[in-house]
Amino acid sequence: MDFNENNATEAVLNSFSKIKDERLKKIMSSIIRNLHQVVKEVEPTEEEWIKAIMFLTKTGQKCDDRRQEFILLSDVLGVSMLLDSINNRKSKNETETTVLGPFHTTSPMIENGTNIANFVKGENCVVSGIITDNNNIPIPGASLEVWQSGPDGLYDVQKEDRVVDLRATLLSLDDGSYLFRTVKPQYYPIPVDGPVGDLLKNLDRHPYRPAHIHFMVKAKGFKDLITHVFIDGDKYLESDTVFAVKQSLIRKLEKNIDENKQEYFKLNFDIIMEKN
Amino acid sequence: MDFNENNATEAVLNSFSKIKDERLKKIMSSIIRNLHQVVKEVEPTEEEWIKAIMFLTKTGQKCDDRRQEFILLSDVLGVSMLLDSINNRKSKNETETTVLGPFHTTSPMIENGTNIANFVKGENCVVSGIITDNNNIPIPGASLEVWQSGPDGLYDVQKEDRVVDLRATLLSLDDGSYLFRTVKPQYYPIPVDGPVGDLLKNLDRHPYRPAHIHFMVKAKGFKDLITHVFIDGDKYLESDTVFAVKQSLIRKLEKNIDENKQEYFKLNFDIIMEKN
Repeated sequence: MDFNENNATEAVLNSFSKIKDERLKKIMSSIIRNLHQVVKEVEPTEEEWIKAIMFLTKTGQKCDDRRQEFILLSDVLGVSMLLDSINNRKSKNETETTVLGPFHTTSPMIENGTNIANFVKGENCVVSGIITDNNNIPIPGASLEVWQSGPDGLYDVQKEDRVVDLRATLLSLDDGSYLFRTVKPQYYPIPVDGPVGDLLKNLDRHPYRPAHIHFMVKAKGFKDLITHVFIDGDKYLESDTVFAVKQSLIRKLEKNIDENKQEYFKLNFDIIMEKN
Repeated sequence: MDFNENNATEAVLNSFSKIKDERLKKIMSSIIRNLHQVVKEVEPTEEEWIKAIMFLTKTGQKCDDRRQEFILLSDVLGVSMLLDSINNRKSKNETETTVLGPFHTTSPMIENGTNIANFVKGENCVVSGIITDNNNIPIPGASLEVWQSGPDGLYDVQKEDRVVDLRATLLSLDDGSYLFRTVKPQYYPIPVDGPVGDLLKNLDRHPYRPAHIHFMVKAKGFKDLITHVFIDGDKYLESDTVFAVKQSLIRKLEKNIDENKQEYFKLNFDIIMEKN
């Protein structure tokens, strides 16, 4: 029998029905069934199909060692956050997770208390907190990777000079506490000079993310935690273009005066780790 | 309310619910609903998600002016043929359609009767037929683009020297007939040195297509026709890796002897065009 609209999905599923890797079979079956479903619902014209092919091609070709346009696509379509929700179902009081985003990379190890804004200027900010388990027991020696954009809305990896800035790795102290100095983060647009930017424009969606600092926290005996702290009052908290805001991750910036009568912001972010 | 497993799809759909382009809204809504459905069914791990991201990235990066890996992916997942079925529902006796494939490109205009195998050697083959409408009225001056692989299984564009061969454009004569000489086509594997080849390997699927010659026929007042003629008896007719075989497109090769006592194959393929 010829391949046709009615037997198409079954024909493709049959073509690999005998493979032994049950997980791969499940994944590919789901992809094929739902992909065919899109074609059946939408009935794309040849021109629309070619547009889709070219969109995917350009998205792949936009990727390099500093840019991952397919992660960005996954982010703006809510796939990354859906995946995050599924993979991090919390039953207790642990800190909630959110997306990794496309700007994570290795960062220099620093001493607690160091300023991670080496080149970028901005409003001074001190970020601190305590890392505990879900019984409030401090976790010393936890590794915290932190990264953020500056007041210009850019991460270091988005700049031509490739100078590492606004990212660092530090360890929690014996009492579970950590502290680093930085500049106040600002809301910013995701990179819009690629296919994902064009897509957002066509969908009449803004490209902004509310101000935040990324955290990746690891400690022995605990699950790796990927999250952000968001800044209360940001105008994009309700419409983050990657859908990553969780109410429990929003913190107030408190204005303070230091010993030299300099104004700075204080941002407290305690972190509760989930046992393995 | 936070973005979560239950409201994820709705949240993403809401983000562009006000756009005026109803067609784009329908397409993107279908893609997002079904893409989220895959994530919910499969519950991918972070590692599996990164694998998918890297697969798509590599697929895009494999594309260049001679290679379209995303079309190849669409082909092996049955999407291209499903699209073909949907866009070419025939009610009458017109010649059935099949996939364009990734090897179509511009070709030199030739006189009827010319040999299109200028460099490639093989068993001689004469391909001919009559182009008519669905009332058997001949169509003169129809443009036929034909292209095929040689006995080595390769199309000209797959070879380093970039010499045009085994592809041509010719016009049907006043009686609607056409004829060109060539070499007998052979079954061949689709290109397997990229992500799609790896996927087929993982799915334990062979990469072969049964022997065929591509046709793209255009005539004033008629719909463009994209199809193949397949060779009867080919061992891959039942398992074409791109699902493109239709019974009505299979023809027998007939052995003949020419005036110089040279053996050749005769392949007859009449074509019925659909009115616009």
